[in-house]
Amino acid sequence: MKKLKRSSRLVEMTQFLLSRPHTLVPLTHFADRYGAAKSSISEDLAIIKEVFEDEGTGELLTLAGAAGGVKLIPRLSKQHALAFANDLCAQLEQPDRILPGGYLYLSDLLGQPAMMNEAGKIFATAFANRQIDVVMTVETKGIPLAYATGAQLNLPVVLVRRDHQVTEGSAVSINYVSGSQKSLHTMSLSRRAMREKSRVLIVDDFMKAGGTIQGMVDLLAEFDAEVAGVGVLVESGEVENEERLLHDYISLANLTAVDSRSKQITVKLGNYFDE
Amino acid sequence: MKKLKRSSRLVEMTQFLLSRPHTLVPLTHFADRYGAAKSSISEDLAIIKEVFEDEGTGELLTLAGAAGGVKLIPRLSKQHALAFANDLCAQLEQPDRILPGGYLYLSDLLGQPAMMNEAGKIFATAFANRQIDVVMTVETKGIPLAYATGAQLNLPVVLVRRDHQVTEGSAVSINYVSGSQKSLHTMSLSRRAMREKSRVLIVDDFMKAGGTIQGMVDLLAEFDAEVAGVGVLVESGEVENEERLLHDYISLANLTAVDSRSKQITVKLGNYFDE
Repeated sequence: MKKLKRSSRLVEMTQFLLSRPHTLVPLTHFADRYGAAKSSISEDLAIIKEVFEDEGTGELLTLAGAAGGVKLIPRLSKQHALAFANDLCAQLEQPDRILPGGYLYLSDLLGQPAMMNEAGKIFATAFANRQIDVVMTVETKGIPLAYATGAQLNLPVVLVRRDHQVTEGSAVSINYVSGSQKSLHTMSLSRRAMREKSRVLIVDDFMKAGGTIQGMVDLLAEFDAEVAGVGVLVESGEVENEERLLHDYISLANLTAVDSRSKQITVKLGNYFDE
Repeated sequence: MKKLKRSSRLVEMTQFLLSRPHTLVPLTHFADRYGAAKSSISEDLAIIKEVFEDEGTGELLTLAGAAGGVKLIPRLSKQHALAFANDLCAQLEQPDRILPGGYLYLSDLLGQPAMMNEAGKIFATAFANRQIDVVMTVETKGIPLAYATGAQLNLPVVLVRRDHQVTEGSAVSINYVSGSQKSLHTMSLSRRAMREKSRVLIVDDFMKAGGTIQGMVDLLAEFDAEVAGVGVLVESGEVENEERLLHDYISLANLTAVDSRSKQITVKLGNYFDE
């Protein structure tokens, strides 16, 4: 037991809660830890709650009763999310991103842990009220985003591989058609990776027609699992609507046009910001 | 400007500092934000510093002078690191991890964001005093570890690919021999990914003879870059010392024997815990 002044206790409790999102912490945990009355702990939590809500950090839920306690639900305010997405769009429009074939170089953005963590908070906010068991992505570039989202939701991450690896044990493989190139690919998931009937949040860095994500959806069917939501950082709007395989998803930015000749990239906010 | 009571200010400052490790925050930032005297802010920081140091969260460095401020250096205490590594070792010893060929299934552990973040904090602690520009890993399973480390050190992550991808632009490829199987592989890194003369912290989930990490070291030479350190989550001690390609690294766990027949896995603490 540690006897701390209220000021020190507030610092410690803030840190404790921030490192355990979506985790129920019983009031007795704090009361025992500090040898303080539950009423004092409740006052501390009221202060923390107010700051977290004012700052757009998240909601501090208080659950009453014997099994009660507090739970931090990270929620990035729309205002913060919008500032993030506007900055993302501005960076996506830098003309030197254009690669041969009209592809965009994104690895510098995806390589910034703080940016991935911020995007993960937005997905965690968007999907906070869904019933989700695991976050899923397919290697490679969506991985940091999936982990950032999983960390905020306090959920494990399941990684779909492009090839079957010896380190994954027995696996289920499927073929899928990548919509943008109409080419056939394989993806596989270890049998051990996921329980049957899991509810799955799919996260990826980029989506064009949605063939890769549709592949993950098909793979879920093999595990008798269900899609609980789909979040992508950037979608390409350069797709005819009838070509799009997937319609229920959230995107943070929308790449509307890439003109290799004039070196012009046009980006708008993703559908998460639609009214 | 927000007028807050000290108690609320402490919560907000704690959260602000925790989300910006290895970042210098001028005292004037806080003084302006809260319309408070620098002396009050200094008192607040002293309280936060004491709690962070007692809790083994990190060190709050105070830099005096006009360009001064505070900087949070995350440092997981040896005691916390040891608790983490002991738990990791216990989980690694579960007999049902053994796969055909004596490989171990690790994806359930690597799929836990909180565990990766904890390991990342240990690497950030171990390498806090090195001069580092980027964290590097090769796809796939070391990626969450590299991002967790990068987040704690406030550094970008550079991802080496197994194949050359259209979305990476022009790239440098090398061949390397994977020591455990003596087989030849390719890895490649986008030319844009890293500045010349960068100082690089290499992070990976698993190392046996060290061929893959040696591959990354060779790739660095192509960029005129330097190794600033190497951290692996699990090393395999089932390697003769003369077979080991790499000698200067930190590991958190050491897999000393895997006996497929008796289903026995023996693990000890990694060399980070050597005295």
